[in-house]
Amino acid sequence: MTFITDDFLLHSEMARKLYHGYARDLPIIDYHCHLPHADVAKNRVFQNITEIWLEGDHYKWRAMRANGVDERFCTGDASPKEKFMAFAATVPKTLRNPLYHWCHLELKRYFGIDKLLDASTAEEIWAETEAQLASPELSAQGILEKFKVTVVCTTDDPVDPLDTHAAINASGIGTRVYPTFRPDKALAVENALAWNNWVNKLESASGVKCANLEGFLNALRARHDAFHAVGGRLSDHGLERAYATFPSDEEAAAIFDHARAGGHIEGMEKELFASYLMHFFGRLDHEKGWTKQMHLGAMRNNNEALFRQLGPDIGCDSIGDFPQGVPLSRYLGRLAGDGILPKTVLYNLNPADNYLFGTMVGNFQEGGVAGKMQFGSGWWFLDQKEAMIWQMNALSNLGLLSRFVGMLTDSRSFMSYCRHEYFRRILCNLLGEDVERGEVPNNEKLLGQLVTDVCYGNAAEYFGFELGKYRA
Amino acid sequence: MTFITDDFLLHSEMARKLYHGYARDLPIIDYHCHLPHADVAKNRVFQNITEIWLEGDHYKWRAMRANGVDERFCTGDASPKEKFMAFAATVPKTLRNPLYHWCHLELKRYFGIDKLLDASTAEEIWAETEAQLASPELSAQGILEKFKVTVVCTTDDPVDPLDTHAAINASGIGTRVYPTFRPDKALAVENALAWNNWVNKLESASGVKCANLEGFLNALRARHDAFHAVGGRLSDHGLERAYATFPSDEEAAAIFDHARAGGHIEGMEKELFASYLMHFFGRLDHEKGWTKQMHLGAMRNNNEALFRQLGPDIGCDSIGDFPQGVPLSRYLGRLAGDGILPKTVLYNLNPADNYLFGTMVGNFQEGGVAGKMQFGSGWWFLDQKEAMIWQMNALSNLGLLSRFVGMLTDSRSFMSYCRHEYFRRILCNLLGEDVERGEVPNNEKLLGQLVTDVCYGNAAEYFGFELGKYRA
Amino acid sequence: MTFITDDFLLHSEMARKLYHGYARDLPIIDYHCHLPHADVAKNRVFQNITEIWLEGDHYKWRAMRANGVDERFCTGDASPKEKFMAFAATVPKTLRNPLYHWCHLELKRYFGIDKLLDASTAEEIWAETEAQLASPELSAQGILEKFKVTVVCTTDDPVDPLDTHAAINASGIGTRVYPTFRPDKALAVENALAWNNWVNKLESASGVKCANLEGFLNALRARHDAFHAVGGRLSDHGLERAYATFPSDEEAAAIFDHARAGGHIEGMEKELFASYLMHFFGRLDHEKGWTKQMHLGAMRNNNEALFRQLGPDIGCDSIGDFPQGVPLSRYLGRLAGDGILPKTVLYNLNPADNYLFGTMVGNFQEGGVAGKMQFGSGWWFLDQKEAMIWQMNALSNLGLLSRFVGMLTDSRSFMSYCRHEYFRRILCNLLGEDVERGEVPNNEKLLGQLVTDVCYGNAAEYFGFELGKYRA
Repeated sequence: MTFITDDFLLHSEMARKLYHGYARDLPIIDYHCHLPHADVAKNRVFQNITEIWLEGDHYKWRAMRANGVDERFCTGDASPKEKFMAFAATVPKTLRNPLYHWCHLELKRYFGIDKLLDASTAEEIWAETEAQLASPELSAQGILEKFKVTVVCTTDDPVDPLDTHAAINASGIGTRVYPTFRPDKALAVENALAWNNWVNKLESASGVKCANLEGFLNALRARHDAFHAVGGRLSDHGLERAYATFPSDEEAAAIFDHARAGGHIEGMEKELFASYLMHFFGRLDHEKGWTKQMHLGAMRNNNEALFRQLGPDIGCDSIGDFPQGVPLSRYLGRLAGDGILPKTVLYNLNPADNYLFGTMVGNFQEGGVAGKMQFGSGWWFLDQKEAMIWQMNALSNLGLLSRFVGMLTDSRSFMSYCRHEYFRRILCNLLGEDVERGEVPNNEKLLGQLVTDVCYGNAAEYFGFELGKYRA
Repeated sequence: MTFITDDFLLHSEMARKLYHGYARDLPIIDYHCHLPHADVAKNRVFQNITEIWLEGDHYKWRAMRANGVDERFCTGDASPKEKFMAFAATVPKTLRNPLYHWCHLELKRYFGIDKLLDASTAEEIWAETEAQLASPELSAQGILEKFKVTVVCTTDDPVDPLDTHAAINASGIGTRVYPTFRPDKALAVENALAWNNWVNKLESASGVKCANLEGFLNALRARHDAFHAVGGRLSDHGLERAYATFPSDEEAAAIFDHARAGGHIEGMEKELFASYLMHFFGRLDHEKGWTKQMHLGAMRNNNEALFRQLGPDIGCDSIGDFPQGVPLSRYLGRLAGDGILPKTVLYNLNPADNYLFGTMVGNFQEGGVAGKMQFGSGWWFLDQKEAMIWQMNALSNLGLLSRFVGMLTDSRSFMSYCRHEYFRRILCNLLGEDVERGEVPNNEKLLGQLVTDVCYGNAAEYFGFELGKYRA
Repeated sequence: MTFITDDFLLHSEMARKLYHGYARDLPIIDYHCHLPHADVAKNRVFQNITEIWLEGDHYKWRAMRANGVDERFCTGDASPKEKFMAFAATVPKTLRNPLYHWCHLELKRYFGIDKLLDASTAEEIWAETEAQLASPELSAQGILEKFKVTVVCTTDDPVDPLDTHAAINASGIGTRVYPTFRPDKALAVENALAWNNWVNKLESASGVKCANLEGFLNALRARHDAFHAVGGRLSDHGLERAYATFPSDEEAAAIFDHARAGGHIEGMEKELFASYLMHFFGRLDHEKGWTKQMHLGAMRNNNEALFRQLGPDIGCDSIGDFPQGVPLSRYLGRLAGDGILPKTVLYNLNPADNYLFGTMVGNFQEGGVAGKMQFGSGWWFLDQKEAMIWQMNALSNLGLLSRFVGMLTDSRSFMSYCRHEYFRRILCNLLGEDVERGEVPNNEKLLGQLVTDVCYGNAAEYFGFELGKYRA
């Protein structure tokens, strides 16, 4: 008995027509992820399923911990096989969690495995996947080809070297891999030592002296230029909330000088400095026609005990309830008032704010670019069926679903490309349900166009990067 | 192929029975809207569909901007026909947005047009609607008659003259048109110049000198009396959140004196003054048996660029996340404690607060008036199927749906009367689904009574105004 | 025609199999409620349905007030029969409110009554229930036996005597009744007089002098020990939000001294003192392997008029919108960092925060105890179908439904045991729908195990108390 059937999640005739006839075979534009580009460059071959599936996957670690599994089998020194066995035993306990769908979808699409993963099938699946992973089809580049991933945008620090991206794009593989400019560390002035070290790195990377604010901005701009030169067309910011208390140039310069001299910055000075930089980053993105991404609302590193032991990004982050409306309105409003508002994608982590975000983007739409302001796809904890439907319903009710740039993986793993399939099935099913209820016209052409646009066409047009060889 | 069928949105036998047998033919009590009463008085005839459909409709402008349409075709100097053509081309891109339903429902009910509006049908629909708009049936008064609108409550400034309302009600048309007392400008003391100008107008309108707080309150009361005299029975307040920090009479008088002398008021003084007035307005409403409306949670004029160019109410408002619970509890609690809490309708703009509002009204219900405290119908961005269902489910789960005063248009356009049909279909379908799932008794009489009450009867009884000639 | 059918709320074959085959006959572990234990001890016989059904039931009072019923028939001096008649007339107006389901489910299960309650059936139902209530089956102990309630945890003040609990557990009845340690009054230092009176009572109850902070903590610990000795394994806190601003021991001692001397404490000092105690309570629970419950987000006593007249807990409480994320993260994070985080159940009152809570518990899961951190079942206003589904979907999507400790009554009435049936039906139906949509495997064994665990097995294992005689 197969769990992942051809018509998984497709509950109407129109849903099936739209998925199989329009969505299924479209290439993938993965415009935001955390893939290690070095693995693409060297065409990494994975030794076993733990390497490609469990390494760095904090979703799975959270599920294992919730199941009472010891940390040794999550992030600890257990062997790859022990870790896989511990995860396999957890899988049946994840019923109704998106992991249950993702895991079986991934086993099916990457390995052709139909069995349900649990303690009784783990041994067999370990062996089967180990054998298959040796084949070129499941190398890093093999996977990108298999899923027709025409663009990947990685997430990068402004101080990072870009030669790997350049080398990949010169290599002739079908996928273009572009860096995304994520200058979060530029804002982190409250940590004097780490910030100054980072500014030193920025000096090296840019070749521009950061002795004063002007130099600092020039150095950042030089790196933005460098990202552009290798094809980057997006920036990204991970913030609890927007910064929107704008200082004068002089005030900003004074804060910079204080911080660069190793002084302690906090509270309102941090707010002012971060607002100043965010305004500057808006200008950079606007000048070059880039798209700015803002990931808002995460509360990170909540577990003191595990943070001390393991550091960040190990599955102890959660959804915050920071006030978003006023600062976001002020930030975007100021950019609009100054005529420098770039194309923007807002990602929201707290579903209680979906409607706020859905209306916020509507305030700043304008002639010339259809869907200039985007309410981004379900992010992190919201990247699952219930919350993707919420995001698409909010966007539909408050704006134009038809102009949506659609799905991204946001993943650290090469095993995540089925997420696009998951999204596409859900989208097609939503529209199919609408047809069944007479809420949209029963018009395959109209709906097929929407599906094609949201799954591929809009992103291909909106971001303005050169696509790889996979085209619709 | 007709999109708006007779059974649009009605998916069960009971839903169809309830809608066609009970809801469909009920008159309309439009107890809150922004219709221009002068258009009723002069029985305006509309020259073309742009005049009646696109003028002032910021919902449509937002959709057009999101579709990349230039501002010239929204609020600019393009011709009426050019604007219509630009909107028509946007309509197919609004699939799943309420505009898609509203537009086709309106074309069907006002003009009998079954075609889907898009670039290919726009020319024909322009001509057809232009011809029909010349007929008396589609004049302002013709429309009110066609939809059996028995009461309209417009939204008015206390300083506005009321002779048009009086003239309409003396004219013998079937619809009574009453003013609603909306004193937002009385609170806006933080803008010294505009506020003093407004107080001067209040002096003129009331004939009462506003040299001190007592005079100011007397002038406001005089206008409240005048609204009552022409049949007004509702007040309204548009606020980000409630004001509930109550000063003594002396403190309030001192703030008034300072402001009236042109002084600058902000922060806590604004809070105190606004709280004082809101308490006074509660008393006025309670004394006369009026109903107080509070529209809470909007964040307005977010787009600096468009605000400077076009001013307010042009589609750059959105949903805020202001803390609502504590101030609202304190405000209503204080009125209740002072024995002056009027009948109240609370409208909530952020759906994340639906449950808060649904429980808040429950704190202040009391013997004597069934449904004294009302959780108002889905407002603004929430006036669509998904969010109307949320509001009705919250109200049902936390209070008594059966006592709900139901739908209003809140519109600036005479083309919005199908919104009542839309609401009624959604209500009937909700109940029909409940019957299908065995969650309410399969009892047509019981459910038919509920539908009749919510769509007409409760409002007719609750507000206490004299109805026009259309009766159930 | 029966409203409460055998398959009430069960809409698929799998739902019916799961409910009738697995869930229906399981015993009940009622690990959080407000039942009067004295009624169990004396095996109270109820004189009429008003005594067992309306006394203390603020849900019903809210509905009656919303229906315009005078306070006299809610909390006033009307006769028991008059009160019942007033409630009966309200019931048909509660369509779609959970009361409508609860009432008819309770009439059916306790009395075998199939009639819908309204004014026309009230007289007959009054007589029928009065007769039946005289039988031993509907005494307090009879009810516990009828529903196979194997454990009841009442909610108790640390100063309360525990001899009734001890006596019940020595009596040989099938149900074990344990106290829950709820020290809210220990934190209420802002009310100097009431707090000092309470500390005096604590001295008496514990036999420990509370002349300084050390004595106070020892007295609290002595009571915690006493609760443990009679079988208590849970604590509980009712807070608007977590306290998480931790003072030094010296600072805490100084605040205690000031308060104990009758001094006024407010603002930050209250915050510090409460945080200090909450840290201490965490340590107590952790030391003994107890489970800490936190009920967060209620805004109480909103109606000044009724509060002055009737006091607390009379139906004028509602859902707040207090910021929860940061303080909760800091509180739990500090306990985790100090290695003293106990098993914890977080109950959330504002459904907008469901996803925040669902991810918060995930930050603190750890090896050893499966489901150590629990997102508690739908609480108070959320204890109904819509909101129970939200809670279970949030938990499923963000954590492990399979490890959920399930339902509790949280009730003051012996008539509430059908709430477990209600919950079980909803859970089984959710899973049945998943099967119908192919979203979980069509595997009765797998799903039956989940149902058994959530409805009984997980709670039996998790809390660690000795069960009564009813076992699965």
